[in-house]
Amino acid sequence: MSADVVALLRAELGERVDTRPASLEAARADKSGHAATGLPLAIVNAASVADVQAALRIASATRTPVVPRGAGTGLAGGANTGGGEISLSVRAMDRVIEVRPDDLLAVVEPGILNADLNALLEPHGVWWAPDPASRAISTVGGNIATGAGGLLCAKYGVVRDAVLGVDLVLADGRLLHLGHRSVKGVTGLDLTSLVIGSEGTLGVVVGATLKLRRLVEGERVTLTALFEGVRAAAVASAAVTASGVQPAIMELMDATSLAAVHRLLSLPAPPVGAAQLTIQTDGPVAADEARVIADVLTAAGGHVSVAADAVEGEALLAVRRAMHPAMETLGTTLIEDVSVPRSALPDMFDEIARIEREFGLVIPAVAHAGDGNLHPNFVFDGPDVPAVVWDAAEELFRAALALGGTLTGEHGIGVLKRRWLADELGDDQWQLQRDIARVFDPLGILNPGKVFAP
Amino acid sequence: MSADVVALLRAELGERVDTRPASLEAARADKSGHAATGLPLAIVNAASVADVQAALRIASATRTPVVPRGAGTGLAGGANTGGGEISLSVRAMDRVIEVRPDDLLAVVEPGILNADLNALLEPHGVWWAPDPASRAISTVGGNIATGAGGLLCAKYGVVRDAVLGVDLVLADGRLLHLGHRSVKGVTGLDLTSLVIGSEGTLGVVVGATLKLRRLVEGERVTLTALFEGVRAAAVASAAVTASGVQPAIMELMDATSLAAVHRLLSLPAPPVGAAQLTIQTDGPVAADEARVIADVLTAAGGHVSVAADAVEGEALLAVRRAMHPAMETLGTTLIEDVSVPRSALPDMFDEIARIEREFGLVIPAVAHAGDGNLHPNFVFDGPDVPAVVWDAAEELFRAALALGGTLTGEHGIGVLKRRWLADELGDDQWQLQRDIARVFDPLGILNPGKVFAP
Repeated sequence: MSADVVALLRAELGERVDTRPASLEAARADKSGHAATGLPLAIVNAASVADVQAALRIASATRTPVVPRGAGTGLAGGANTGGGEISLSVRAMDRVIEVRPDDLLAVVEPGILNADLNALLEPHGVWWAPDPASRAISTVGGNIATGAGGLLCAKYGVVRDAVLGVDLVLADGRLLHLGHRSVKGVTGLDLTSLVIGSEGTLGVVVGATLKLRRLVEGERVTLTALFEGVRAAAVASAAVTASGVQPAIMELMDATSLAAVHRLLSLPAPPVGAAQLTIQTDGPVAADEARVIADVLTAAGGHVSVAADAVEGEALLAVRRAMHPAMETLGTTLIEDVSVPRSALPDMFDEIARIEREFGLVIPAVAHAGDGNLHPNFVFDGPDVPAVVWDAAEELFRAALALGGTLTGEHGIGVLKRRWLADELGDDQWQLQRDIARVFDPLGILNPGKVFAP
Repeated sequence: MSADVVALLRAELGERVDTRPASLEAARADKSGHAATGLPLAIVNAASVADVQAALRIASATRTPVVPRGAGTGLAGGANTGGGEISLSVRAMDRVIEVRPDDLLAVVEPGILNADLNALLEPHGVWWAPDPASRAISTVGGNIATGAGGLLCAKYGVVRDAVLGVDLVLADGRLLHLGHRSVKGVTGLDLTSLVIGSEGTLGVVVGATLKLRRLVEGERVTLTALFEGVRAAAVASAAVTASGVQPAIMELMDATSLAAVHRLLSLPAPPVGAAQLTIQTDGPVAADEARVIADVLTAAGGHVSVAADAVEGEALLAVRRAMHPAMETLGTTLIEDVSVPRSALPDMFDEIARIEREFGLVIPAVAHAGDGNLHPNFVFDGPDVPAVVWDAAEELFRAALALGGTLTGEHGIGVLKRRWLADELGDDQWQLQRDIARVFDPLGILNPGKVFAP
């Protein structure tokens, strides 16, 4: 049966079908550290919409599960492909079909990398705002599938705010054009938004009409503020938000994170216990805004340093950007992704401190403080997440929900958080969402076991 | 049977059930000019979520159609209630439950008027950006149900951009809490977005968590530019968009509209054939932006007048705001709502001129030129839309679709555009959307005959 499926795929798609052991092995995993059980049947490297349709028609006819995949940089296991499954990669579909600076839109294939797209857009004076930390290595299609966020979201929005339309191939191979090219449009149900963040459970995104912004004019001003501890830094970030000045970037690093990055980058060790805010303003009044923010931070007990120029500003941000490599020096990492209302950020850091004490763990944490999205890092030895880490993570999720927050701000549910999905949605909404997915995919062959798995 | 339903409603909801003839007559219609056939069974004036749940449980048990209603200001007939149906009004649920300026959110009941909400928010230094022209008389719940837009959308977004979560009562009376309170959140499918613009087909919105903005600081600068004709004005508006300066408001009035408003307001008649752009900039660099825009407009052949102060600026905008009353002086009006990519605005006005010639009609048109949303007004005598007007409207829809546009930018499908819905969506997507609605409402009792009616 499996051999039949591969034979059918090869007959239709020829060299687009890859069954080399190393390729199959790679398709089992993403950047979450988790890998699927068993080896995929095959990888289909689709080069066109027709390739995607052909693969899905064969999958439907043979009831074979299909896992859509971009660059495999997800952090929740959503693209991991296991035994008996087809990995359907759209990474090779990476063309930019159309750029319209006058209409502030671009039509693209899903496999283009976020950073590559923005490099192509820049000469047109426009950009696509979603900026996940992975933007150099993650695809636009993957950003759409996960509903990605990033550092600039509080000011410039998330993926949901930046997509006008999506072309979607259903499980049975039919192609739908969802959404519109106009700024406004309310014709029927908003299926474009439904697909954003659906993690491959509704169909395969084979094209997107993206909403662009004009490049931001004026200077960027970057500053850092050191605080005695993480709670003081979190309170200060809430004070910045409450001041009404909107930074482009406001990142918080706790003491363990900051110390680990300084070690990695061979910078002088920060004061013991010190946490740091890194803030950037942009636009025509960036300098004025930075001055207001510096005053707020100083009043909140921070030691403020303002970058002299753009180069020094980039160096300050590089500290934050080195977080993931710094964590990798400490061990295997499970990166969590809870999000809370901005005012609850100090309380959420208190909860992390409590969970560290109760479970005897160190949980280095950074936060997109401008939007209340935290990434606590559970660090451990060996490839598998120990039970105590999952127990602590569960406590983290409960704490976030109790503070009016959510399980995942920007990484998605995938396999790693599926067992807590109903805790947040409630059983009725969980079942409703699953039933909606079934309308798109009656046979249940699209990314089974992800998001809605019982 | 009908008597039984009303008796059941009265037994449960008492004085909340209104069957007075004048009330029933009013519930047949909205502001579209269209009215449903027959009289509703009853109006339920829900005062609480429990009232909505009770009414829907009775409706489900008796298979009675329910039409959710806010203030009845819709322009597509979506809230019109006819024979054998219950009109379920949430207008009396108008409390603001919570305002959090620090988290930039508010939790509200659906029946509050948009303008009343913003009056309550202003002392907190925040506002809810969606600003349909009806904002003084339309409810937040209705704005959500239609996915409303307005004048400020190109700069400040539409309803879809301004809602974090929705509380929804399903057809069977169950209450779901959709969405989240945090800036980011990708837990499961984005059902909040699916409900926005669903026109009462998925459930009854009984609460909403709204995303707020801080009040815009700085001055507002208002200017107008007169052009020889509507095409020149449309080309100039596209030039403004292409210049990269983002006005808060950019409204276009064609010659017939402008002349009618000047007559209504007893202003001097504009030059024959002249069309007008009315533009407002705001924020810290409003004056600089207005200067750039004035230069663009002058270069495009416009005669520019800049308001000396805010009072004069409001007077200039009042001309645009008097459009609807001015049309009412001409006859009965069918207000259309097509939306096209901004660069296609001049071509769309050419199409309107062609349709005027071919069908022997005068079609006064205004446009939210900043976002490509046009409101051509078909004016006729008597209460019913003549066949020639529908034929011309159909030609208008086809032209908008051919230019990459959409049937409805902000008013919705309701009853008036349902027969063209599949033309835009395609048959496959139309059926998929209908099947999704059935997941929420298996008995098909929610607003039957609207949006998806065959």
